[in-house]
Amino acid sequence: MFGFWRRHAARRDHVQGAGPLAHRLRRLSLLDRLDEAQAFLELFFAQAQGATRSSFQKRWAEVRRALIKDGHYDHTPEELTYGAKVAWRNHARCIGRLYWDSLIVRDRRHVSDPAAIFGDLCEHLQQATGDGRIRSIISVYPPVRPGVRPSYIESPQMVRYAGYLAKDGHVIGDRKAIEATRIARSLGWAQPEQPGPFDHLPMMLRDGDERRHLFELPAGAVREVPITHPDHPALAELGLRWYAVPLVSDMILSIGGIEYPCAPFNGFYMGTEIGSRNLADRGRYDLLPEIARRFGLYAGASDTLWQDTTLTELNRAVLHSFKAAGVSMIDHHGASDQFMQFHARESAAGRRLSADWTWLVPPQASSACEVFHLDMEDLHTVPNFYRSRASDGARLMPHNGNKDRSRLSKYIDDVRRWARLRQPYA
Amino acid sequence: MFGFWRRHAARRDHVQGAGPLAHRLRRLSLLDRLDEAQAFLELFFAQAQGATRSSFQKRWAEVRRALIKDGHYDHTPEELTYGAKVAWRNHARCIGRLYWDSLIVRDRRHVSDPAAIFGDLCEHLQQATGDGRIRSIISVYPPVRPGVRPSYIESPQMVRYAGYLAKDGHVIGDRKAIEATRIARSLGWAQPEQPGPFDHLPMMLRDGDERRHLFELPAGAVREVPITHPDHPALAELGLRWYAVPLVSDMILSIGGIEYPCAPFNGFYMGTEIGSRNLADRGRYDLLPEIARRFGLYAGASDTLWQDTTLTELNRAVLHSFKAAGVSMIDHHGASDQFMQFHARESAAGRRLSADWTWLVPPQASSACEVFHLDMEDLHTVPNFYRSRASDGARLMPHNGNKDRSRLSKYIDDVRRWARLRQPYA
Repeated sequence: MFGFWRRHAARRDHVQGAGPLAHRLRRLSLLDRLDEAQAFLELFFAQAQGATRSSFQKRWAEVRRALIKDGHYDHTPEELTYGAKVAWRNHARCIGRLYWDSLIVRDRRHVSDPAAIFGDLCEHLQQATGDGRIRSIISVYPPVRPGVRPSYIESPQMVRYAGYLAKDGHVIGDRKAIEATRIARSLGWAQPEQPGPFDHLPMMLRDGDERRHLFELPAGAVREVPITHPDHPALAELGLRWYAVPLVSDMILSIGGIEYPCAPFNGFYMGTEIGSRNLADRGRYDLLPEIARRFGLYAGASDTLWQDTTLTELNRAVLHSFKAAGVSMIDHHGASDQFMQFHARESAAGRRLSADWTWLVPPQASSACEVFHLDMEDLHTVPNFYRSRASDGARLMPHNGNKDRSRLSKYIDDVRRWARLRQPYA
Repeated sequence: MFGFWRRHAARRDHVQGAGPLAHRLRRLSLLDRLDEAQAFLELFFAQAQGATRSSFQKRWAEVRRALIKDGHYDHTPEELTYGAKVAWRNHARCIGRLYWDSLIVRDRRHVSDPAAIFGDLCEHLQQATGDGRIRSIISVYPPVRPGVRPSYIESPQMVRYAGYLAKDGHVIGDRKAIEATRIARSLGWAQPEQPGPFDHLPMMLRDGDERRHLFELPAGAVREVPITHPDHPALAELGLRWYAVPLVSDMILSIGGIEYPCAPFNGFYMGTEIGSRNLADRGRYDLLPEIARRFGLYAGASDTLWQDTTLTELNRAVLHSFKAAGVSMIDHHGASDQFMQFHARESAAGRRLSADWTWLVPPQASSACEVFHLDMEDLHTVPNFYRSRASDGARLMPHNGNKDRSRLSKYIDDVRRWARLRQPYA
């Protein structure tokens, strides 16, 4: 028995050794994996049409055997599709989950080379952009397997603008991307001769040996929207723009105990993400003072609320521009209403809502949005997406609401599960 | 030993029996009380000038003896003053804690009759209002003692506006106060013949037997500010106003294991509390559509952001009106800056910041305020203020950051402390 335990405890970490990915992955024991796999399969078979108890038991026996033998099992395409959708549904920080069931899942587990992944992602971006009516899509590349490190994407989004820090402290572009720009340059990226505020950064992937690969986005691949204001022509002179599709590429998808570190996905923008944050935050483009001056709103004293007025105008401009360009975007009031619908549907389906207030409430007219007045709790349910073990991964759990269990009761549970697992093999 | 234990365990709840207050108070064992008393006295003597280790030990022996004998001890006036200030400093939901040390503490532990308390509170309000430059004051009335229920205030604030629900569903006044208005009427309050949107509700106190007493605010006691807009005269026609001093009266002050259920305090307003919440929330005055119509901003579609624009204008009006009336008020940008200063000072003093992001971040231009970008954690430290055991009281603890301790380790600690405590009496 102890030999058995020790043998499997050694498999605790799928990716041995150091490296950025190994540090980001959740540390799951074999028991954790079994637990998550079982919970996920139960969920999957409960919703599958025509599924019987025996079909679940057959699949679970298969998965359990594979996990105990190899520390891994392969999802069927149906399981993967459903798992990715549920991961979205469970993700507490997303306000746009109403249409979780309409997510398009591209099963790309056969594409493993960084160059091939990048090429495939360009197709994903094109498919998502369409004619402007953005479709929510996820592409799933190979998962982590014991001893095998898959390729993954280091850039937080597929499309990003560069940030240049001049010697005098002056910044052109996105302040948040200054370090990424420096790294790209050191890896051989030829920045434009005339640095501009909206230069596309190349995408950074890492292969199985953690070597970095840079890929420049092909010309014309990225749809962008120029920002204009319905009433103030002065805004257009600033030459602002933003890309149409936010394609998040650095989150790890976790389904039934299997981690997919390369599973980039896209939705469409809520206006405030660009108008209140990307273009306005002091750590990003910091454009409020400049725009306020052009609009004649700038005042030194904060109690004239010039910042509030400018933010609203900038948000109006963003919404107006995307609408004029025919590109999907939702305003924060609409997003809040949709979320309340999602909440109602989830309740009707008998599921507890997992939501993170600090991420969901819009940074603009917050209390006028209904979500502001909703009590929320992040249940850290799996399947889910996470960035890193340290920030959000460690708290993910297979079952709802068990985070307050004491360590002792968890140990007792572990022993019980081992005893149960051992029976068929005793 | 077991007799000793059982005898003291029976004292677990100071207020025996049912009743609203008993349900709101934290349930503290004698050990908890001893622990909090010791932690508080250590804190108090650490900051007191010229205090020596032996002066702390003398006081702590005295307090410990009193707690074990009577389940209670009396704070010295200095301890009470310091405790109330630290309770403010520790309160995670307050953004205005920069001047915690300047709190004026009125020691009113000799005033116990509801009528006397109300009379004294009127003085408090007058003193706080002054000529408009509002002073932060707390009045502390008798604490809970074993077997003795003190009087306390049921109204959440001293000044409140009534809310009237007509048969057709139409509401005059504050929607949040509809139930309180009904109760006041059933207790014999004669509402004005012509109900208005800003009628003062009488204050409701409860005596030691939980009987309710109503007191009408004397004419002229409440300073109010009429709301006008610097540019839109149309706003003045609505006849809006708000009171100058928010005097919170239903929170329980907890210092060193002693609970003061009647410790009303006041600060001054941050503009958004009135402009974004009280006058705008759908569950309060719900004035956004009406004001938007008068300003010519109203539009059906949410993506014109008419709500955002109206909110900003209403907030500007509130700030402008208070300034014009010479009544203290801070705008949310200023409050955010002050909080960052508070944060810096606390760090410099070697104290961890206890803060609740969901309460501190203003509901207006949130991400333009620096507090939005600050990581916060509510440490639930005592001394502190709380509303009720169920909502926020149960999580308060004497020491920072021990909330993740397992129950087992807490029990072991309890046994250890008992052993230590028993020694002098063995």
